[in-house]
This record gives sequence, C-alpha cells and structure tokens, in this order.
Amino acid sequence: MAGSARDPQQAGREHLGARAGAPGRPGAAGAGARYTARLLIGCADRPGIVAAVSGFLYEQGANIVSSHQYSSDPTGGRFFLRTEFVLDGLAAPGTERARFERHFRERVAERFGMEWEVRYRGQRRRLAILVSRHDHCLMDLLWRWRRGELDGDVVSVISNHRDLEGEVRGAGVPFHHVPVPRGAKEGAEARMLELLGAERGVELVVLARYMQILSGAFLERVRVPVINIHHSFLPAFAGAQPYARAHERGVKLIGATAHYVTEELDAGPIIEQGVERVDHSQSPSELERVGRDIERVVLARAIALHLDDRVIVDGRRTIVF
Amino acid sequence: MAGSARDPQQAGREHLGARAGAPGRPGAAGAGARYTARLLIGCADRPGIVAAVSGFLYEQGANIVSSHQYSSDPTGGRFFLRTEFVLDGLAAPGTERARFERHFRERVAERFGMEWEVRYRGQRRRLAILVSRHDHCLMDLLWRWRRGELDGDVVSVISNHRDLEGEVRGAGVPFHHVPVPRGAKEGAEARMLELLGAERGVELVVLARYMQILSGAFLERVRVPVINIHHSFLPAFAGAQPYARAHERGVKLIGATAHYVTEELDAGPIIEQGVERVDHSQSPSELERVGRDIERVVLARAIALHLDDRVIVDGRRTIVF
Amino acid sequence: MAGSARDPQQAGREHLGARAGAPGRPGAAGAGARYTARLLIGCADRPGIVAAVSGFLYEQGANIVSSHQYSSDPTGGRFFLRTEFVLDGLAAPGTERARFERHFRERVAERFGMEWEVRYRGQRRRLAILVSRHDHCLMDLLWRWRRGELDGDVVSVISNHRDLEGEVRGAGVPFHHVPVPRGAKEGAEARMLELLGAERGVELVVLARYMQILSGAFLERVRVPVINIHHSFLPAFAGAQPYARAHERGVKLIGATAHYVTEELDAGPIIEQGVERVDHSQSPSELERVGRDIERVVLARAIALHLDDRVIVDGRRTIVF
Amino acid sequence: MAGSARDPQQAGREHLGARAGAPGRPGAAGAGARYTARLLIGCADRPGIVAAVSGFLYEQGANIVSSHQYSSDPTGGRFFLRTEFVLDGLAAPGTERARFERHFRERVAERFGMEWEVRYRGQRRRLAILVSRHDHCLMDLLWRWRRGELDGDVVSVISNHRDLEGEVRGAGVPFHHVPVPRGAKEGAEARMLELLGAERGVELVVLARYMQILSGAFLERVRVPVINIHHSFLPAFAGAQPYARAHERGVKLIGATAHYVTEELDAGPIIEQGVERVDHSQSPSELERVGRDIERVVLARAIALHLDDRVIVDGRRTIVF
Repeated sequence: MAGSARDPQQAGREHLGARAGAPGRPGAAGAGARYTARLLIGCADRPGIVAAVSGFLYEQGANIVSSHQYSSDPTGGRFFLRTEFVLDGLAAPGTERARFERHFRERVAERFGMEWEVRYRGQRRRLAILVSRHDHCLMDLLWRWRRGELDGDVVSVISNHRDLEGEVRGAGVPFHHVPVPRGAKEGAEARMLELLGAERGVELVVLARYMQILSGAFLERVRVPVINIHHSFLPAFAGAQPYARAHERGVKLIGATAHYVTEELDAGPIIEQGVERVDHSQSPSELERVGRDIERVVLARAIALHLDDRVIVDGRRTIVF
Repeated sequence: MAGSARDPQQAGREHLGARAGAPGRPGAAGAGARYTARLLIGCADRPGIVAAVSGFLYEQGANIVSSHQYSSDPTGGRFFLRTEFVLDGLAAPGTERARFERHFRERVAERFGMEWEVRYRGQRRRLAILVSRHDHCLMDLLWRWRRGELDGDVVSVISNHRDLEGEVRGAGVPFHHVPVPRGAKEGAEARMLELLGAERGVELVVLARYMQILSGAFLERVRVPVINIHHSFLPAFAGAQPYARAHERGVKLIGATAHYVTEELDAGPIIEQGVERVDHSQSPSELERVGRDIERVVLARAIALHLDDRVIVDGRRTIVF
Repeated sequence: MAGSARDPQQAGREHLGARAGAPGRPGAAGAGARYTARLLIGCADRPGIVAAVSGFLYEQGANIVSSHQYSSDPTGGRFFLRTEFVLDGLAAPGTERARFERHFRERVAERFGMEWEVRYRGQRRRLAILVSRHDHCLMDLLWRWRRGELDGDVVSVISNHRDLEGEVRGAGVPFHHVPVPRGAKEGAEARMLELLGAERGVELVVLARYMQILSGAFLERVRVPVINIHHSFLPAFAGAQPYARAHERGVKLIGATAHYVTEELDAGPIIEQGVERVDHSQSPSELERVGRDIERVVLARAIALHLDDRVIVDGRRTIVF
Repeated sequence: MAGSARDPQQAGREHLGARAGAPGRPGAAGAGARYTARLLIGCADRPGIVAAVSGFLYEQGANIVSSHQYSSDPTGGRFFLRTEFVLDGLAAPGTERARFERHFRERVAERFGMEWEVRYRGQRRRLAILVSRHDHCLMDLLWRWRRGELDGDVVSVISNHRDLEGEVRGAGVPFHHVPVPRGAKEGAEARMLELLGAERGVELVVLARYMQILSGAFLERVRVPVINIHHSFLPAFAGAQPYARAHERGVKLIGATAHYVTEELDAGPIIEQGVERVDHSQSPSELERVGRDIERVVLARAIALHLDDRVIVDGRRTIVF
C-alpha cells in the first residue's frame, strides 16, 4: 500500500503535475502565469537599458509575462530587472537556448556590463536543510515541498543531532548526521561541504534552526546562498535566552527575520520578516511557541521568494520583487 | 528502530514529560504556571459572586494562580469566571475531588444558580478530526499534537475520502473512511456518530476542511462542541469559488475564521480570526495558498483556546479569556 | 502674528518647498526620487509594447526612474504600465510638452490602441471633501495636506451639516453647507455639482464619512473619481449599526475599506484595506473608536495612492502599483 | 463666532457631555460600562487576597463591573489587581470616600501590606506634552483630547522650539517656549519643573517627539510618570539617522515603542508597540512617514491605557490589563 506518506517524492511529483501553473510563492506576487524563462539582470543604471532588453526580447519573438525593475538611484545607482517571458523555442533544453543566451550576451549584456542569468522553467534547484533539534521549520518545509509549494527539491538534511532522523527519512529524504564536537568544527564543516557539494550538487542551503555558527571559511567555500531564520524583537535582545529576556522586558511584539548568511552574525541581507502580538501573561515558553509559528512561515516565504528569483542582493540589503 | 516518526504517540508523551509546565497555547494568555484545577462558572450577574467563590477557595486552602472574569452587563447581564488554582489535596483523582465539588455546589453554586465545571489538570480531552482532501489543517494539528502543544489527544480521524489515510496512519492515529454518497448523508452521519460516541468517547470534533455540510440532526446528536475553519474576506463573498471571486474584486486582505458550528451555516460563535495582506498580482491559487497558511494557524489557536477552557459561549458570541 | 495655524495654506506651501523630493505616499512604494513626468498606459496586451515605449523614451533622451507593469493575462488580457522618467526639456510647461505628447501619440499610442496620459511633476490635483458629522477622516486629511503629504490640494469641503465648519475654515479651506432635506436630494446634488465643477475644477471627490447616498445621476455627471471609506468586518454585516452587530457576534477583527464609488453601493473597486484586533471586552462604541483609527489611515493611503497615479481600475478591481 | 475651532476647551466639554459612557481607550478592553471608582492593588502574592478584597467590596455594597488580576508567580511573586465597581455612596466627593478608604486600609490593605489607590470616576488627570518640531504626535493627541477620547486634560505644552506655538494656542492650550541652549540644560529643566509642578499640577508628562534627553535629576524631581515614543525596527538600529540605516539594511517591518522613561535611555518599561510593513522601494523619508503614522497611534494608545490605569509597572516591565 503505497500511501503518500510512504513515497513522498512520488507524492511531490504528483502534486507538481497537478499544478498546471507555476511554483508560486505564499504571500507574494504574480507567479500564476505560464512562462518559458526568466531573465535576471543587474548593472550600473544608465539610459537605454530597458529599451535594449525589451527590444531584444521582442525581436526574438518573446512575449513578456511579468517584469519588475528597480534602480537604487537613476544617477550613478544600480539597476535591477527581473522579467518572465514566453518563447516557445526555448521550452526544451538544446541549442536554441545556447543561441539565445549568446545573442543576448553579444547584443545587450556586454554593452551595458551586465551581470545576468537566464533560468528556464522546470530547472528546479536542489536544497539542503541544516537543522539541530527544533523541528518546526524542518517539518513545515518538508510538508511544503511534498505538496509542491516550493520550486525546488529537498535533496539532503544534515544535522548535528540524531533527533530528527526518523522524521526526515520518513519523508523520503537522505539524512546525514554530522556531529560538531567541541574543538572539531573544522572537520565537521569539511564533511558538510562534501555532502553539499560533490555528492549532492546543492544550490541553496537552509539553516532551519541550525544552532552551530558556521565559520567564515565554510561560507566562503560553500559557494551557494545560505538562508537563516532567527527570532527578532522590538527592541532587539542580543545574547542567550532571548525569549526569557523579552519576557522580562514585557515586549508586546515578537518576530522573526529570514536573511542571507554572511560572516557578520545575524546581520546579512534581510529577505523577510514577521511579527505577532504577545502580552505579559505569556511565559517565556509560550513566547517561544508563538515564535515558532512565525519562524516557520517567515522562513518558508523567504525560501519561496529565493527560489522564484525574486530576491536580489544589493550590498547589505535585498530588493524583493 | 523506534524513531519518533514510527511511534508518534510515544514521541508525544516524551514531549509532554519534558514540559514541566502546562498545556499552554499559541498566541494567548498565561498557562505557564502550574495549577491543580480550573473552575469555570457562568451565572446571572449580581453582587457577591466573586466574594463567595474566592472565599470558598480560600477556606479550602486553594491558592489562585490566575483568574479572569467578565460580565456582559453588571445589571441584568451574565457573569463568567475562569480561575485556576493550586490545591494539593485535589492533585490525584479520588474522594477529595468529589467532596470539593459537593461543597462548592452546596455552598456557592446553588445559591447563585450557577452553571459550573471543575476540570483537573491532566484530564486531557479526546479530539476527532473530520477532513476531506485538503491536508494543511490536519497535518498542522497532528504535528502540534505530537509535539505536545495541545492539551488533548487526537483519537480519530474521519474522512469522506481516502487521500489522507497514509498521513494519518503514519502519525499513529486511527483513520476511518466514511464516504458520503449523494442521497446517503443520513447513513454516513449515523456511522460517524457511532465512531465519535460509543467507540471513542470524543469530546471535541474539529472540522479541518471537511467539505460536507453536517445536518442539524447530526449537530443535535453529537452533543460535543464542533469547531470549523473557513476562509473570510473583507468584504465577504458567499457562494462557490470564493478565492476566484476575491481575486476578481481585487481584495487586499484575505483571512480565516474559526467558529463553533451551529445549524446556521458559518455563522456560529467566532473563536479566532486572522488575515494577511495580498495584492493584485496574486492568482486565485496563490490566494488559496496564503489562505491555507492563515487557516491552519487560526484553527490551531482556536482549538488550543478551547482545550484550555478559555472560550466561553455567550449566546451568538464568545468570550475569550 | 502669522503662526501656521493662522495661515495654513502658507504653511502648506512652506512644507512643500521644504520637501526637495516627491509627493510620496504613506505605506507604499518609491516616490522618493526626482522625476519630470509620469506616463500611464492601458491597452490590449500583445508583444512589443514595452519595447516600443522604452525605445521611444530612450530616443527622446528620457531616463527612466521607476516603472511598473502588469498584464491581466499575456494572451488576450489587458496591459498596464506606469513609468516615471526624467527629461529636462519637459520640466517647464510649454511647446516641448505638446511636441512630446504628439510624438508619443503618433509613434506609439495609436499603433497599440492605447489609453494613455502624461502627468507632469507639480501638476497638483484639486480635491473636494464631502463630510457629514464625523470629523476623524476630515481632520486627518487636512493635517496631511497642510504638512505636504498629499500631492494635491484640498480646495473645498462640502457638508450636509454645519458641525465642522469651524474646523474647516480654521484650516483655510472654503466650507460649503449643502443640506439634504428629505425629498430634496436632487437639488442638493445639483448644488454640489456646481460647487465641484465650474466653481472649483475639482479632480477628485473624497467621501470622508459622508452619510448620504449619492445618486447614480450624480455619479454620472460628476465625471471625476469619487473615493469612499467604510467599515469592514470578518464576516461582513450589512445594514444599520454594524459595530453593534459586530459586538453581538464577537468578531475578533474589525477593519475598513477604501474604494472607488460606483452605483453599486459599497461594491466599487477596492483601493486599500486595513484591520485591527479587538476582543469581547470592547463595547460597540469602543469598536467604533478603533474603527475610526483604521478608517482615517486607510482613506489617507487610498488618496495618496490615487494622487500618485498608482491605482489603475481594471473592471471591478484595482491594480495598485 | 464660537466655532469649535475657536474654543476647543468648550468643544472638549461638549464632547464629554455627549458621551454618556466612559473615557475608554482605543484598541483595548472594557471601558464602556459605568463605574464609580477603580481600586488598584499591588502586593506580595499569597492566598486570600481576592477573598479579602471582594468580601470587603461586597460588604460595602459595591457591585463589581470589571476585574483583572495577575500574579508574576503564585509562590513568592507579586500580585496585581485592577477592579472597577459601582457604589452609589461614593459617586460624589465627600466624607463617604474618606470613610471607604479608611476602612479598606484598616481591614484589608494593612493586613496584606498592599500598595493601593482608589481613583474615582471623573477625576481627570492633568497632562503636559513636551515636543520639539515634529507635530504628528502632538496634533493627534490634541485632536483626541478635544473629541473626548482621553480620560485626562492637556493643560500645557512645552517646547524647545517655537514652531508649533500656533497650533497649540489654536487648540486653546497654554504653550511655553523653553529653549535648551548648549550647556544650559540644567536651567531649562528647572524652568520645566516649575511649569509642570507648582504652576500646573501636572500628573503625566508625555514626550511627543521631544528631542532632548532629560537628565536623571529631572526624572527624579518630576515625580510623575513620563511616557516617551520612539521608532523601533527589527533588528534594532542604535544611533543617529535610524531610518536611513533601516533603509540601507532593507528592513521589511518598521515600528514604534511607547515606554515609561527611566534613566536608561529608551529602555524603560514598554507600554505599547506597533509595526507596519515596508519594502525596498521606499526611501528613508517615506519610511519616516510610515513611522509617523505608527508613532502617533502607539503613543495615543499608551496614554489612553495609562489614563485608564491599565498599565502596572512591575520592575522593568509592564502588566497591561
């Protein structure tokens, strides 16, 4: 009896098949429509960029489905563009795609000194989740993945504890136990880099309440984006036991922030945030419970936005289209 | 290999054991403290009620841990009280509890014509979940139950479809398939009443996206509270395909309402509500996705509030302490 | 002694002078940057529109500052564009503007069958406010106008009561008392049309808690957009005394909706919405108080969005860029 | 010509006369009902407190209208009670009130070592507002006061600038210009203490965007609560130009916190907080505009809560009933 709980990857595929439309994202903009490919551009702003890009797409026979642009400053700032278009010739992998990209580079990108990328519909990215003992973000992501809410695939879960092994394997995902003994972080990180890289070709690392601090060397070598979730309060409380301290100060709002990980702890570019109201009668453990509900939703939204290529990093901040 | 995924009930118990404190609830007030019993009262308001109740508890040696009261109108209205107290003699089942309740009835309750109830710590209620094909509320409730967030136990899931059987059995909960063929609702409801009543002693029925309308006869015979979740919009859209219609009207907020079920469809006393912001670029299916995230949280909160005896029905509305 | 309270129009101008930048809007996107003009387009979607428009702007020497587009459906749907650009030659009124518009019509607009409009920076629109006795929306709008938050000018307040005459005249705005005696609505509306039209050249009518229903004939003859604010609940309560009825039902969220007025009462395209949490302990009059705080903010946002040309009506709904 | 704008104090009184009910508060609980007096208690928690207080009130013939209690810890914690009751004999000032208070002290308060206070309906408190140049909080408070939303009276506005003098005098409130030249803070604070104390009998000081830091000596000598409002972000940004820094970091939520002022800058007990969503396209000045809308509402709520005696300070945090 192969119920969906037994073969979740299959279930995931079925869900995806059922969705005529796009991967979409919770709480955000416009994925509903069909598209063939997505063009992402960043360059120094100057007149003529949109004319050149849209002119090129028109000549190629593309029909623009959605387009978002932003300039940090029209004079001397940076210009960002995300556009989705339909172009039947690019629907299947092959030489047409290479030709399209070469022409774009030669006719447009080089002229404006663009950083650019074309991502074709159906190119699902590979995610690894790092987790310690808290299961709420992990379980939520596995559930969303299985029902087809994410435009990517969870290919690996790595944990420094064995607590969640059963849940992960039950969802049909490989589980790797990489303990981090005191003084042996270097070796643990090396093992994780192996698991993420050669073995799995991971394209996004999600810290779903992973309680170890990743070293600068790890972040440099991993070479893919790393997204973290952490609690946030008004005002902020640094250090240990933040919920206990928030309770002591009687905060009225608690929240969570999802951000890209940089060497600067918890200060990387913010992708998404959320808050909930609390009151004096809630104990620290109840605040944590509220915090969990916020964390899982904020993290899931951040990941969905990233997978939809809606998040553009501009120095220390993000542009979210 | 007894991973938590294989023996969730065990996992649930471990979690419960780990929580030194109380059942608690997400997003709401003060369960953190220890208590022995909870006293719930409703009666016509008049002077002296609080003095009588608190005097009685003091004489019995009880230490009040928390107390909430509300009067719909001090003159001619209805008075409601919820108080939690510590009284060591009542910690274990036995004759002390019977004696306490008899004395309360004789010395206080009869004098004020009270409806009242004592609920002792550890008396976990038995829940049944009715569901059709949407899994988001069901999965969320099973997860919360297993990690000990609910002061009650999910003892049965009943569905008119087999889609979610694997998920339910995987969580260690009995699954009952009760199809509702056209024209045969009476028989289906009779079967469900058997499953809820004699066989299971269910004390709360949760409609976690159960898409059949329950008959007035069923509601009368089930004799336990039934909680439902449904989408809500500003303004409201009655009828079929509400998300499509909300999209057509360009609503900027979508939400969900959890309420007790009465014969008046979707108009029973409201327990909890939530909303999220949306915009024109989101397709109807994306609105549904946002709606799912709201629904599961609002339903979970409503159930936690109910199980903590924080919801008091006063005619067509609720008092939520 | 010319304190700002005595000469608010002067104060308003000072504020405007002080703002180096743009009109901006509360709670919404990107007005901070300088721009010369704004181009607004609506037409049947088909390939090449963006290429044609951006190519034209580039040829004219314009530098695009911001651009938003939306297609209700790339195949057979409607396309909308809002773009702001810098083009020094158009900074002052004169023949250059006429030439620019003629060229755009001949080279782009006619080819795609566009509805289109160019609005130049500094072309402030003229608003009239209709109000009855509730002052919260009126006072808030007058304050925002005086401090330069609105890219438009309040040129007239019309009321069916005299209650707020002092407040309005104190803010330096003409006040017109147009009573609406039973059975004499037609005459009253005719007088209002005179006041709005010939005398004042009003370009936007705001119903800031105006408690009379405007006739279909009035709406047809006024020929400018009319924005209304009204309370909203989950679920909705039609009819009289909505706050009392919301209290009876124990709603947990109350809100407000700002929309364009159509003949279909309170069902015109929604511009903006907001909600706040309430609980059982709040009386109907306290719910109204919360409602007032929501109404004034939601109405102000809707008006700012409209004046920034960010709201596009697409049938029964709005696109808000 | 006695329009309300010309004689706002009169207008204020008219509004109050019109409100049959209570002062109430926006966004919070239960002021609608009539009451004669409010009893506020704080003491070490131990059994019998509620029995003693409610027994006493019952003997005096009081009818309890509302009651809230909280214990920071039933064993060794602190107990707080706020109860409103009707007792006709206390409706007018006189010997009955003195007798009631003496009996309460002798029979209840001394026995439990209570800090306590009785506040009679109609005893409106006297507020002073300190402000610099930003007018949004000031204007909002004056408007709320004039329409009767606050259970207190604004008797004085003090500013270190003359900018808002016209607005304040126009609202019928005395305005005092107390400049704070560099190096002369001591003298300025001495003058403010005179204005607040002997001359005006002020019972609450509101810092409505007062940009000077009050010295510890001032706070010690002012002897009445001081409430401040300031911006808050997730995460927090200390130092100058917080909105510019929030924009640089791309925050997605900005907010405001109202708190009692202590010597520890911006770290006093939090009364109320609020947030709004923002995005990358909003300039720092637009973030400030959103911030203003939050600040005025959060500050107004905090003041209303304080005036309704709903805020109890327990060390570094507040209990808000």
